[in-house]
Amino acid sequence: MEQISCNRSFGGEHRQYTHASAVLGCSMRFAVYLPPAALAGARVPLLYWLSGLTCSDENFMQKAGAQRVAAELGIAIVAPDTSPRGAAVADDPAYDLGQGAGFYLNATQAPWAAHYRMYDYVSQELPALLAAHFDFGPAAIAGHSMGGHGALLCALKRPQDYVSVSAFSPIAHPVNVPWGQKAFAAYLGDDPAAWPAWDASVLMAAANPATALPCRVDVGLADGFLDSQLQPQALEAAAASSGYPLQLHRHEGYDHSYYFVASFIEAQLRFHAAYLARA
Amino acid sequence: MEQISCNRSFGGEHRQYTHASAVLGCSMRFAVYLPPAALAGARVPLLYWLSGLTCSDENFMQKAGAQRVAAELGIAIVAPDTSPRGAAVADDPAYDLGQGAGFYLNATQAPWAAHYRMYDYVSQELPALLAAHFDFGPAAIAGHSMGGHGALLCALKRPQDYVSVSAFSPIAHPVNVPWGQKAFAAYLGDDPAAWPAWDASVLMAAANPATALPCRVDVGLADGFLDSQLQPQALEAAAASSGYPLQLHRHEGYDHSYYFVASFIEAQLRFHAAYLARA
Repeated sequence: MEQISCNRSFGGEHRQYTHASAVLGCSMRFAVYLPPAALAGARVPLLYWLSGLTCSDENFMQKAGAQRVAAELGIAIVAPDTSPRGAAVADDPAYDLGQGAGFYLNATQAPWAAHYRMYDYVSQELPALLAAHFDFGPAAIAGHSMGGHGALLCALKRPQDYVSVSAFSPIAHPVNVPWGQKAFAAYLGDDPAAWPAWDASVLMAAANPATALPCRVDVGLADGFLDSQLQPQALEAAAASSGYPLQLHRHEGYDHSYYFVASFIEAQLRFHAAYLARA
Repeated sequence: MEQISCNRSFGGEHRQYTHASAVLGCSMRFAVYLPPAALAGARVPLLYWLSGLTCSDENFMQKAGAQRVAAELGIAIVAPDTSPRGAAVADDPAYDLGQGAGFYLNATQAPWAAHYRMYDYVSQELPALLAAHFDFGPAAIAGHSMGGHGALLCALKRPQDYVSVSAFSPIAHPVNVPWGQKAFAAYLGDDPAAWPAWDASVLMAAANPATALPCRVDVGLADGFLDSQLQPQALEAAAASSGYPLQLHRHEGYDHSYYFVASFIEAQLRFHAAYLARA
């Protein structure tokens, strides 16, 4: 693991690291924000942030304005990349498949299966790497769009690893929308029988309320993808059917951009802080 | 003037507009943040933000996190581009000359003089355009790096137009540093006699304290450009010699990036708000 940048930010530090990922079979970059308390030696909790289509580790750190509140609350943030990367990694010219579009699942189909195992990477390899180099407390997970769905996936598949989950504008029911169908057909194969295991609405409908995590989702009602690609109502129905503690917040006038994320990141951070503090 | 985008942000709106600039002889884009009070019909004050080398109207709006505090304080923000643009506009392959590097001055030399009149654009044409389409109250001006110097230039040359000025990491004494010398030689000619009229430290040393504006400058002590390109101590000496009310804040550990700007934009906005409120 090699540190490649450092910027002071709200009394803490934004850093970027690269490392060789065995799971993904390539070099990966991630960003971490360490609040002032962490720099002073305190054990602080950690929020994973999973970004959306086309993003890298940089978008959230540059655009969300999360560091101010993370500094105040004493929460570290780790933002991984959105897919394996590099010339040896399969890619596609479209923005919604291949590099920048890993969908936080483990691919089973050629040519993707060789590298596209973002679920194992963000939920297991990266946490183990962080544990070897930092002393973080309990973890929460959040994300935006494709990454909002990724955060829900991780929380639903590995509830023991997180204390809370949140998402902005998640692709809430990928098996039912074009972005998800395209990616799942490529990564998981044409047989839709393999898809529901990677769909947060399907998983939430079958979730055991005894292991459910506090869950907050924010969507903008002026989001041009709301009905065609996101379908938060599917997640809402799933939560109602299983008794999953979903708080779905709909915001008049907000779109899919980081201007929306920035407007409500403080609310999501304070949501997580309440659960992280008592974990 | 044509509106080309709109994003809700902290209850207000981030918008982008294009218009034909007579001063620059090209089409220009700028961004405006309207706080909730402006959308509700109130007359709000205006902060001009001038960006640095390579930037457009987007960098500040996406990265500084200013909208939260601007929404609270009821201040609009207008961010112009950093140079004339387009295939018909002279350019240079270097990042620090030509498009993206207008230096907020009026060029006198070929091939630049035909379009590069950013001083007249930001201090006169753009305010007149805004006055025709909005009903803003008093104005302040701020900026970063090249744009920090541009803000100081405007405040020193036209103190009647602004109530306060601030800058992050300004190129404080361009006649004395490589960025400034290269740009001034191209835009103003090889004879350095033409340069001091566009140097904020020279102007501040000669400023009349009776028309001076409250002035706040923030610099990071880990800024790699601090000694080689910025030289805030020149501005400090100029202020001392003329009695200009400069508040220079030095911040341990901070660099030249928007991580620094984001960390202290709230302080600069509150600085301006105090003067805007009584103007």
